[in-house]
Amino acid sequence: MELSESIKIRVRFSEVDSIRMVWHGNYVTYLEDAREAFGRKYGLEYKTILENNSYAPMFELNLKYKQMVSVDDELIVNITFIPTKGGKICFKYEVYNAKNNTLVLTASSIQLFTDLNGNLEPMPEWFEEWKNRNHCNA
Amino acid sequence: MELSESIKIRVRFSEVDSIRMVWHGNYVTYLEDAREAFGRKYGLEYKTILENNSYAPMFELNLKYKQMVSVDDELIVNITFIPTKGGKICFKYEVYNAKNNTLVLTASSIQLFTDLNGNLEPMPEWFEEWKNRNHCNA
Amino acid sequence: MELSESIKIRVRFSEVDSIRMVWHGNYVTYLEDAREAFGRKYGLEYKTILENNSYAPMFELNLKYKQMVSVDDELIVNITFIPTKGGKICFKYEVYNAKNNTLVLTASSIQLFTDLNGNLEPMPEWFEEWKNRNHCNA
Amino acid sequence: MELSESIKIRVRFSEVDSIRMVWHGNYVTYLEDAREAFGRKYGLEYKTILENNSYAPMFELNLKYKQMVSVDDELIVNITFIPTKGGKICFKYEVYNAKNNTLVLTASSIQLFTDLNGNLEPMPEWFEEWKNRNHCNA
Repeated sequence: MELSESIKIRVRFSEVDSIRMVWHGNYVTYLEDAREAFGRKYGLEYKTILENNSYAPMFELNLKYKQMVSVDDELIVNITFIPTKGGKICFKYEVYNAKNNTLVLTASSIQLFTDLNGNLEPMPEWFEEWKNRNHCNA
Repeated sequence: MELSESIKIRVRFSEVDSIRMVWHGNYVTYLEDAREAFGRKYGLEYKTILENNSYAPMFELNLKYKQMVSVDDELIVNITFIPTKGGKICFKYEVYNAKNNTLVLTASSIQLFTDLNGNLEPMPEWFEEWKNRNHCNA
Repeated sequence: MELSESIKIRVRFSEVDSIRMVWHGNYVTYLEDAREAFGRKYGLEYKTILENNSYAPMFELNLKYKQMVSVDDELIVNITFIPTKGGKICFKYEVYNAKNNTLVLTASSIQLFTDLNGNLEPMPEWFEEWKNRNHCNA
Repeated sequence: MELSESIKIRVRFSEVDSIRMVWHGNYVTYLEDAREAFGRKYGLEYKTILENNSYAPMFELNLKYKQMVSVDDELIVNITFIPTKGGKICFKYEVYNAKNNTLVLTASSIQLFTDLNGNLEPMPEWFEEWKNRNHCNA
């Protein structure tokens, strides 16, 4: 049973670059939007992490661009939680152009945990419980 | 005797919109760059304000666009402190295209002071002293 | 009879600055989102303007900040077309915090028209017709 | 003999997120700044690519975050061209905190070529010549 979420994003005029295509860096924002939507659905949003006295800084981010997208296209961002053993948050993503359902981008991300002073937390207790509660240990 | 500073900015590829001109919202960032450069010169940067337990949120921002600017143009941003009676930071700005010295934008901003809880501070003592030290009371 | 539109915006994590409030420059993006929503409703979006061989660059933008907004707040942006005599697009805006309905920002903007070479167009014919069709001459 | 370039970047106030660290997505912009500086040094900037009737859209981008960086830190971005056989632009990057010379981020990118209609160009002739001129065939 996978934990996943899906959001729709309308490309903003200001997100399109000088060749009238979405600037490649904006996908980082779209992926974050998807993580926040996932977090609201499953109780893992930025605010919850912070209330547990943790940060979850980005550790690794990989993006593979499949097709360019232009202004006023709508995008579908699918995000799926990847169960792992350790104290880290792993997601994979697929972005589609809503118009013709073609694949626009695939991506993956790994976030680690730190306390509020920035010291690495190998496995916060609250996250262990979150994983158990959501049956998503590897 | 005016307090002023001048910075040079190279337009980034990602700051240009789909008509290959600088997206109008990016000037807000350029003006902030100029305020920070002014602050480093005269001891009024974000960090100093924070060390005095104040914030200086934007209260009013006015922008008049004179000419469009394209990628890889360089801009000169001139910033001048406007002395006023109250506890507020007022600046005016002029942005020029470095290539041909034409005027690209004029702007003005007003910032007020709050304490770290967001409550308005009519006149922080440290700012009164800053103004006296810099001979810029109205 | 006023021409107006209203949109809801969720603040993004990346739009919040180091005092955990929406960075003041991001409102420029929210206002553009509102203009595009207005344009989709009344046939005046970026794409339509471009299909008429015009650009509508920003000429003047004024922002008055009333209250700070934090991450995950939702905003309501109301946009209203201001009828004027000339060949320009004038809007006023009101931004509210959806949570408590308090006023967060008021703003106004003026856009002029140019042809695709950037030369000023005092009054494009298609815009005259748009104004007549929408009964919004001053 | 490696082709490489190095730039210094001052972190902007607006680039810092709500935990007062550089928002992870901003590094995509810093890497693009480095590519443009490389391009100015070796004749491979966006403008040159465009004058050769090509685009060089991002195909793959990988980022590994090593350390968080706060406002007003200065960053050093080193960029190195990776010679390959095909018609693609491959770079690797290292970002350092200028203050203490610690490694902040490593990254790699692959760009492909298209013509101005977005059709893939396996090996544009001008790029073959650029590679020969710069002795950087694999």
